[in-house]
Amino acid sequence: FFFGSMSRLGTFLRKSPKYIFGAATISGGAYLYQWKSFEFFFDEPHPEDKPRLVVLGTGWAAMSLLSEIDCEKYNVSIVSPRNYFVFTPFLPCTTVGTIEWNHCIESVRRVLFRFRKRAKYYEAAASDIDFENNKVTCSDVLKKDDDPTKSFELPYEQLVIALGADNNTFNTKGVYEHATFLKSLEDAKAIRKRILNNFEQAALPSTTEEERRRLLHFVIVGGGPTGVEFAAELHDYVHDDLSKYFAKECKKYLKITIVEGMDRVLNAFDKEIAKYTQEKFKRNGVEVITKTFVTGVGGETIDFMDARTKERTTHPHGLVVWATGITTKPVVKGFMSKLGTHQKNARALTVDGRLTVKGCTNVYGIGDCSTIQCEKLETLLDSLWNQQEYVKDGGLTFETFQKFVADHRKQHVQLDFLGDRLEQLFEKHDTEKNALLSKSEFKKLIQEADSKITALPPTAQVAAQQGSYIAQRLNHLGDTRHSVMPFAYNHRGSFAYVGSDEAVYDSDMIKLKGGAAFWGRNTAYLSKLFSWESKRNIMWDLFWSKWFGRDIATY
Amino acid sequence: FFFGSMSRLGTFLRKSPKYIFGAATISGGAYLYQWKSFEFFFDEPHPEDKPRLVVLGTGWAAMSLLSEIDCEKYNVSIVSPRNYFVFTPFLPCTTVGTIEWNHCIESVRRVLFRFRKRAKYYEAAASDIDFENNKVTCSDVLKKDDDPTKSFELPYEQLVIALGADNNTFNTKGVYEHATFLKSLEDAKAIRKRILNNFEQAALPSTTEEERRRLLHFVIVGGGPTGVEFAAELHDYVHDDLSKYFAKECKKYLKITIVEGMDRVLNAFDKEIAKYTQEKFKRNGVEVITKTFVTGVGGETIDFMDARTKERTTHPHGLVVWATGITTKPVVKGFMSKLGTHQKNARALTVDGRLTVKGCTNVYGIGDCSTIQCEKLETLLDSLWNQQEYVKDGGLTFETFQKFVADHRKQHVQLDFLGDRLEQLFEKHDTEKNALLSKSEFKKLIQEADSKITALPPTAQVAAQQGSYIAQRLNHLGDTRHSVMPFAYNHRGSFAYVGSDEAVYDSDMIKLKGGAAFWGRNTAYLSKLFSWESKRNIMWDLFWSKWFGRDIATY
Ligand SMILES: Cc1cc2nc3c(=O)[nH]c(=O)nc-3n(C[C@H](O)[C@H](O)[C@H](O)COP(=O)(O)OP(=O)(O)OC[C@H]3O[C@@H](n4cnc5c(N)ncnc54)[C@H](O)[C@@H]3O)c2cc1C
Ligand SMILES: Cc1cc2nc3c(=O)[nH]c(=O)nc-3n(C[C@H](O)[C@H](O)[C@H](O)COP(=O)(O)OP(=O)(O)OC[C@H]3O[C@@H](n4cnc5c(N)ncnc54)[C@H](O)[C@@H]3O)c2cc1C
Repeated sequence: FFFGSMSRLGTFLRKSPKYIFGAATISGGAYLYQWKSFEFFFDEPHPEDKPRLVVLGTGWAAMSLLSEIDCEKYNVSIVSPRNYFVFTPFLPCTTVGTIEWNHCIESVRRVLFRFRKRAKYYEAAASDIDFENNKVTCSDVLKKDDDPTKSFELPYEQLVIALGADNNTFNTKGVYEHATFLKSLEDAKAIRKRILNNFEQAALPSTTEEERRRLLHFVIVGGGPTGVEFAAELHDYVHDDLSKYFAKECKKYLKITIVEGMDRVLNAFDKEIAKYTQEKFKRNGVEVITKTFVTGVGGETIDFMDARTKERTTHPHGLVVWATGITTKPVVKGFMSKLGTHQKNARALTVDGRLTVKGCTNVYGIGDCSTIQCEKLETLLDSLWNQQEYVKDGGLTFETFQKFVADHRKQHVQLDFLGDRLEQLFEKHDTEKNALLSKSEFKKLIQEADSKITALPPTAQVAAQQGSYIAQRLNHLGDTRHSVMPFAYNHRGSFAYVGSDEAVYDSDMIKLKGGAAFWGRNTAYLSKLFSWESKRNIMWDLFWSKWFGRDIATY
Repeated sequence: FFFGSMSRLGTFLRKSPKYIFGAATISGGAYLYQWKSFEFFFDEPHPEDKPRLVVLGTGWAAMSLLSEIDCEKYNVSIVSPRNYFVFTPFLPCTTVGTIEWNHCIESVRRVLFRFRKRAKYYEAAASDIDFENNKVTCSDVLKKDDDPTKSFELPYEQLVIALGADNNTFNTKGVYEHATFLKSLEDAKAIRKRILNNFEQAALPSTTEEERRRLLHFVIVGGGPTGVEFAAELHDYVHDDLSKYFAKECKKYLKITIVEGMDRVLNAFDKEIAKYTQEKFKRNGVEVITKTFVTGVGGETIDFMDARTKERTTHPHGLVVWATGITTKPVVKGFMSKLGTHQKNARALTVDGRLTVKGCTNVYGIGDCSTIQCEKLETLLDSLWNQQEYVKDGGLTFETFQKFVADHRKQHVQLDFLGDRLEQLFEKHDTEKNALLSKSEFKKLIQEADSKITALPPTAQVAAQQGSYIAQRLNHLGDTRHSVMPFAYNHRGSFAYVGSDEAVYDSDMIKLKGGAAFWGRNTAYLSKLFSWESKRNIMWDLFWSKWFGRDIATY
């Protein structure tokens, strides 16, 4: 393939160098010109007359919003303690240097510049929100708590909360002290350093056999995509690179273990795919232990409990990577408690079907920090059935059904999803074909509507789509011609890398395993990066780390 | 130039694509093949019959030695707590991201692999040497002091000490706590983070005017090449990048100050060059304060003392970079004290003209940790003059002069440097032209010989040449046909980057200033990198950071 395309490229170049170089020069020149000539005033004061939009966070949800928001309509301020966006799907790659850390992030300020967004960025953490007076309190995270200049207030007309979530430890003891998460760039750096330190230590003559075995036992807690991808990357790193530069015996001591509480890895994926992944891991020497919980993590040991037999065992480890999912951030819980009953007993910031935070009118919650809660229509069935307005002759005609939908679509977004399929639906559920929906027929119909509202997974895909949705909503706020449909999630499938240039892909339509999924993943992810710079850097990294190996210096 | 070469390239490509692609394919294929096919056994036990060579350090001196040492002749072990080599000349570039950190280092194991050296590397620190029993004690730096498996011993037949030096603080108070050095990769990372943190903090509404002024005052202590290059890089970073992404007013508060105790920066360079540099800095808004000492560094302030008036002033600072030179490492001082009188009162590990550590026969000292000490011949003049053997008729004939040189060249390496110029020298200094050197004539001659021995500067050039010298010496040890000339340093000139794509170059023959020196620097440095991988990465970085700017994310 390579040779074929090389000679085709040769023919092409021989035939048309003038055109290529002409085009390259012109487009390159134009690109450089616009890049260099744009004058950008971050210090231009915000004009007074525009409503103020404050965005909290610089993750998937916030950045997707920012890339689409119309900065001519709002004075936009962004608050986040981290002045860059992390492209999380490639984060597992950075733990072993398949991709360099700094290539998997994008500077917020540079993204704003690139998208020509006259927004202000503040490197601070939102610590409090005054929902009544529309103000966010932000803290300079680099200052000490008692510094009077630590915090400042940002008033808002519109507020978007996109703070993401914390790692969930299920209160397992020792996790914060002795395990490493895999959520931030710092986590990825710490993991890489630890892997290399352990190999170097294992190579010393003073290290005992037993210690070598401990140092080179890598335990991954959680068989979700993050855990699976990290195991796959670690396997590749050891087999492609470390085994070349370290004594062969290191390989002898090496052990990679994935511990999963459920009965298989990749629970959110198709069963076939999970099976394929486990078989692949078996071939690659990665041990998968299912139906087992971790009950404690120590500096050098980890405790397992078999979910069925309740038997407990202790194992030495050199590194524990904890990837078992997420929980609500304390700061978000603080916001929730301020909203009182509207957020009572909720496990995350509850938003309605249009992503407005419950209890507010001008505050939106998107991404991992929020969860959509819609009242089930089914619970209202009896009270509806008593309303003379709709129910005639013991049932709903198509007209009264239409009226019912029109009257209730604001409160019950599920009805919005029915869109222009009302006639179809009515016919479908009118099983008696008497142009009248009986109570039991109507129940079936609203059950179908309810089923459209399922809890969305905490993924970048959801976060990005929600960010884009709120951007469009805000861009058209007050525009009466623009009716606001509730947020509808469009699942484009999930990838997981499983090692040695193979991946799996699961969508409603297509399931893929192997090399094709690997290339699909790379292509799909590359297309999602905000800047050409990152695309270029990551392509370059993938190519070079494949052909010339990953670096093994402990920097 | 760019367009001219583009069209020439076009013509070339049109004419000869077949050849190019043919050649590229073959050479690329061959390269990949040899790269992939080399089987390297780091764990192959060292054969018993070869002498053991232990090398301490992985800096310039050690790596240069390793790249030339014949691993068939020795069982080579390398000990260093840092498993990579740092290409220090590009280190100032990494503080602002002109070059990425990891591109300015090379993994020791990968370099060994590339040079096909069957040497063992241990990530440990040499802590003690038993010169009598020929053993080095090494410590696993990752372990606690009380761990019984912390240390191990390496016996040697030959030992090379290349431990480099520490930063010299001149006991100024607060330097360790509040200033940052610029010697290691960690230093460069810390500096970059601090610069960006300060800009982000200055951009917050809660930050006062006064604090902004403090945060954006960067002080560089020491006007040597390191200080000058860092100031130049920082200037470029602020003007090319930060001022584009941060509010313009940040520039208003910005101040870069170089403090130098002597009367000019770049003392080791030509006066003209120093003047040019200072003028360039003036144009660029970098303040140079000469004849001033720093007497203390606090968390937010720095104290200056005028060397002439003794007047003391205190200034707020956001970052102090300390680059005032080097001092002997405590561990090296420990080795010296073990060698007793041979190293007494010495300020660094003293070696003779052939780089053998004084007091040892099989231990060599190279690079920044060592200093060559040769007795001046002049001090021996009187006692020599009394020796009847040489002095006849009140002077030396050419024959007795030859005999004197032959008899003394072993102890006095300056005589070795005279090489085959003896006849010339004799004639030159025989001013009376009577074929006899009088005492005063002979004094002049030995003064000329003494002048060949000057203290060598602590530079990478010296370290690398010494490493290569010892490699050759060890490769030919015991080979009687190979006479060991003393170490002769060949100065190839020094570069310093001064900002906005200009540099200065100073050698005995040529002095350069401006763009030519900048390109000369890049070319010279690139040629010195060990691997093609680093060359490629650095060229890529220099190109992209020039055209698309440096990154501003605080990772
Ligand atoms: C290793 C890994 C791999 C993943 N791979 C995939 C994948 O392949 N596909 C996929 O769809 N999803 C993937 N995910 C999930 C995805 O990353 C998350 O769902 C997504 O990041 C959620 O976006 P978010 O904007 O809600 O939160 P985040 O991206 O977590 O962003 C939260 C933001 O809030 C900021 N913040 C935190 N506290 C404060 C505060 N007090 N004030 C202001 N700002 C604050 C943070 O700095 C951050 O910028 C992966 C996650 C991980 C960890
Ligand atoms: C920012 C900067 C820029 C510079 N630019 C130039 C330049 O442009 N041109 C030039 O000629 N020179 C330059 N120099 C100087 C040059 O880097 C040094 O002279 C050179 O590094 C000295 O080499 P070395 O091998 O003696 O020591 P180093 O390179 O410092 O190496 C010392 C080695 O010893 C190891 N070590 C330390 N302690 C122990 C221990 N206990 N046991 C075992 N190993 C140990 C270290 O890990 C390290 O690998 C620059 C220096 C700096 C800091």
